[in-house]
Amino acid sequence: MQPNNMIAPGEVWLVGAGPGDPDLLTRKAERLIAAAEIIFYDALVGSEILALAQHAQCVSVGKRSGRHSKPQESINSLMLNAALTGMRVVRLKGGDPSIFGRSAEEIAELTAHGVSVQICPGITAASAAAANSRCSLTLRGVSRGLTLLTAHARAGETLDLDWSALSRVGGTIGIYMGRSVASEIARTLIASGCNPETPVLVAVNVSLPTERLIRGKLSGLGFLVAAVGDDDPTLLLIGEAVGASRPTKEHMIRSAPRELHASS
Amino acid sequence: MQPNNMIAPGEVWLVGAGPGDPDLLTRKAERLIAAAEIIFYDALVGSEILALAQHAQCVSVGKRSGRHSKPQESINSLMLNAALTGMRVVRLKGGDPSIFGRSAEEIAELTAHGVSVQICPGITAASAAAANSRCSLTLRGVSRGLTLLTAHARAGETLDLDWSALSRVGGTIGIYMGRSVASEIARTLIASGCNPETPVLVAVNVSLPTERLIRGKLSGLGFLVAAVGDDDPTLLLIGEAVGASRPTKEHMIRSAPRELHASS
Repeated sequence: MQPNNMIAPGEVWLVGAGPGDPDLLTRKAERLIAAAEIIFYDALVGSEILALAQHAQCVSVGKRSGRHSKPQESINSLMLNAALTGMRVVRLKGGDPSIFGRSAEEIAELTAHGVSVQICPGITAASAAAANSRCSLTLRGVSRGLTLLTAHARAGETLDLDWSALSRVGGTIGIYMGRSVASEIARTLIASGCNPETPVLVAVNVSLPTERLIRGKLSGLGFLVAAVGDDDPTLLLIGEAVGASRPTKEHMIRSAPRELHASS
Repeated sequence: MQPNNMIAPGEVWLVGAGPGDPDLLTRKAERLIAAAEIIFYDALVGSEILALAQHAQCVSVGKRSGRHSKPQESINSLMLNAALTGMRVVRLKGGDPSIFGRSAEEIAELTAHGVSVQICPGITAASAAAANSRCSLTLRGVSRGLTLLTAHARAGETLDLDWSALSRVGGTIGIYMGRSVASEIARTLIASGCNPETPVLVAVNVSLPTERLIRGKLSGLGFLVAAVGDDDPTLLLIGEAVGASRPTKEHMIRSAPRELHASS
C-alpha cells in the first residue's frame, strides 16, 4: 500500500489507539496508521487494530506491569533510529498518549535529536467505560469533576498521594491499572472520609469483546476485583455519578452480599 | 441516503463529537451520524461535522453560557418525541458525553420513558489540547494525575470547591469553560498553596482552524485570557506537566512581562 502524505519522512506521530475497539479509533488515527511505514505498538493495542496496519512494519514494544518488556530507553532508541533513516513512524499507544502514556519522555528524546513529533489524541479508558456502562463521569450538583490517577508509578510511589485531600475535592475518581491495589485504595479512601457506600465500577478490558463492567460499593472494591486476571487492563471508577447510571442488562452483576463487602 | 443499521428505530445514541475537528470523530461516531435520521446538536458542534450529517434532519439545541438557548427539559422532550415516533436519533455533543455533557439527565429522562439509550465516547478537549500543544497531561514523578473541573455549574456554585485540597492532590488541573473565572481561579489556587510560577496553557477553540494555544504562568492567567472572546470555548490547563512540553513554533506565545503577570 502506498502511504498517504499525512506523515512526513522522518517524522514521528504518537497516536492514541483508544481502549481497544477499532471503532473507537479516531478518523485521524486511522489515516495515520494507513500512512505509517513502521508502527511501534504497546501491549494494549490489540490484533483488531493491528489488522489495519498490515501494510506497515509492526514492532511490539509492549510494556505491561510485572512482565519483561522493552525499557523506555530502548523504545526511544528504536523510534529514533527509524525516524533518522527517514521512515514515516507511528507510535501507537493504548488510550490517549497524554494520559499515563509516558509521551513526554518520548517527545523529549526525539525532539532532542531534531526529530519532528506530533500527537493524535485517543479515547481514554474512562470515557469508554462511562459510555459502555451508560454512566456520566460528572454530574451537576453531585460530581463537579473527575480525577484520573494511576496506581502504578515509580517503585515506592504507588499510593503516595494525599488521599484525604482527594476525597475532599470530591467528584469521580478514576484509577488506571488499579486492580492490584484496589483493596488498599478502598481502605485508604474510607479512612480519609469517603462514604463506604460510594458506588464503584470495575471496568475490565473496556470496549473489547471480553469487556466486563462490575458494579458495587467502595467497601466491596477488593472483592469485586478478586476475579479479574493479572493481565486484564482494569480501570476503577469511584463516585456518586457512577451510581446514577443504568447498567446494560447483560453486564449487570448484582452487588455481593454485605458480609462479603465488609470483609474486603 | 439509506441509514445503516447501527441505530434501532426509536433508539437514541448520545455521541461525542470531540473538540471540533471532524477528523477527531471516532470511526464509530462517524457511522452513527451516517445512521441517524434526526440529529440534535450542541452549539459546540461545528459546520464541518454537520456536513457529514446532511442526510439527516439536524436540530440545533445549542446551549452556550449567557445566551438564550433551549433549556435541558426542552431538549429532553424533543429527543423523547423523536424516539417515540420510531426515529433513529443521535444526540451529538461537543467533546465526550460523559465529561460535563449532562448526559445523565438525558439518559434518566429517556430511559424513564422506556427509550433505549447508548453512548459513543468522544475525544475530550483536554486530550486534544495536550496533543496539539505536545504536552502530556501526566508526567511520571511530577504529575501523578489529572483533575478535570468545570467553572460553570448551578448558580452560586461556580467556585465552590476545596481548592486547597485540590492543590494538595497535585497533578494537572484542567478547567473547562474557564475563561470568565480564570483570574479568580489563579488567585484562589495561589492562595491555596500553588506555586505562582506553575505553567499554564490556555487552549481556545481546540482543534479548530481558529485554535489558539497560549502559554504562561499561573500568576498571569488572568492576563492570558484577556484577549479571548466570550464565545470561544476555552480550556485552562494548569500544572508542571504542561510546562514540560514543546509548543509548535506557530502557536508559541511568549509569557507576558512579569509586571503584567503580577497585576492579574
